[in-house]
Amino acid sequence: MIYQDSISLSTKGNGDIHEITGNVELLIKQSAIGNGIVHIFNVGSTGAVGTIEFEPGLARDLPEFLNRLIPPGKNYGHEQMWHDGNGHSHLQATLLGPSLTMPFKERQLIRGTWQQIFHLECDIKPRNRIVYITVIGE
Amino acid sequence: MIYQDSISLSTKGNGDIHEITGNVELLIKQSAIGNGIVHIFNVGSTGAVGTIEFEPGLARDLPEFLNRLIPPGKNYGHEQMWHDGNGHSHLQATLLGPSLTMPFKERQLIRGTWQQIFHLECDIKPRNRIVYITVIGE
Amino acid sequence: MIYQDSISLSTKGNGDIHEITGNVELLIKQSAIGNGIVHIFNVGSTGAVGTIEFEPGLARDLPEFLNRLIPPGKNYGHEQMWHDGNGHSHLQATLLGPSLTMPFKERQLIRGTWQQIFHLECDIKPRNRIVYITVIGE
Repeated sequence: MIYQDSISLSTKGNGDIHEITGNVELLIKQSAIGNGIVHIFNVGSTGAVGTIEFEPGLARDLPEFLNRLIPPGKNYGHEQMWHDGNGHSHLQATLLGPSLTMPFKERQLIRGTWQQIFHLECDIKPRNRIVYITVIGE
Repeated sequence: MIYQDSISLSTKGNGDIHEITGNVELLIKQSAIGNGIVHIFNVGSTGAVGTIEFEPGLARDLPEFLNRLIPPGKNYGHEQMWHDGNGHSHLQATLLGPSLTMPFKERQLIRGTWQQIFHLECDIKPRNRIVYITVIGE
Repeated sequence: MIYQDSISLSTKGNGDIHEITGNVELLIKQSAIGNGIVHIFNVGSTGAVGTIEFEPGLARDLPEFLNRLIPPGKNYGHEQMWHDGNGHSHLQATLLGPSLTMPFKERQLIRGTWQQIFHLECDIKPRNRIVYITVIGE
């Protein structure tokens, strides 16, 4: 059995991070599928998803780390081709990745107590984001 | 068809790496599912899974690389909030990710000869870990 | 329903990047599965897959970033054990990861307009690569 739906987010630009654990857990329940996996996918090349302990310290640490590792700048090939100022956004998003899969059992998401699902905006402008959810199981 | 089970690991703290290829291959056989995918998930926010050539050199190189890139320290927002000394552990684990999916066919895991599955402990203390396995296919 | 197939690539060594979006979209159509997920897996420990805006600037930026972050060198434990010159290749590939999952609906891959699927060769020599594809859905 397959159930597909999506989560909409309005983001404020680079470093804006949202917790979407509750949204994903709700869609598992709506799917009426008991056991399986849920796939979480950021549509677009400058956003990412993953798991983290979602608390204010790490919500700041993760984008700060990415901006130190892959800072904004004019020297990216992407910048020299397109001049849109978001070369670093693309590399940050590709490094973290757009795709996360998690298991669930008896309609409960399997995760650590302090392990939540985040969406991270890497682009430099506010964006309306679609996070596409697919629940697969029986 | 869905089959779910888990692997238990006792880890020794940051940088402790375990090979779990054999465990995953055994669970594929136990599932009695012929063809499909196997999903491997670290429960908790300070551990990660992935693939690597599992030999002593790389088993040292991977955690050393992560500790150079994201060293222990007091300047993480997480540290300033919680003072538990594992801000770097969270970022290392989020960067590698808790989730890996691999294909199998005729009950055989598809992988390179030198491509094994690892679990990496990023936390600073010994932990008892659950790696949750979901086999999906027909 | 499950459909499995593979994509063959000839690569030119470290930094050689291929777009495989069209190949994956073709296999979804061949599968005759309407809705579900497609799993894309690099067989071998020195190649990776992911999503990126596939344009010449970023196609250069991504491998350049990885080679600055994890440069070739003699100091890797892998190098000291095996002397094959590709310690950095393994770490680069493990960091990006061998596995990508994407959703599709009504036989159409769900992705951003500028979000394409890449395969990145991290090894130091030309390689013949198998990217294993599993389509799951109904």
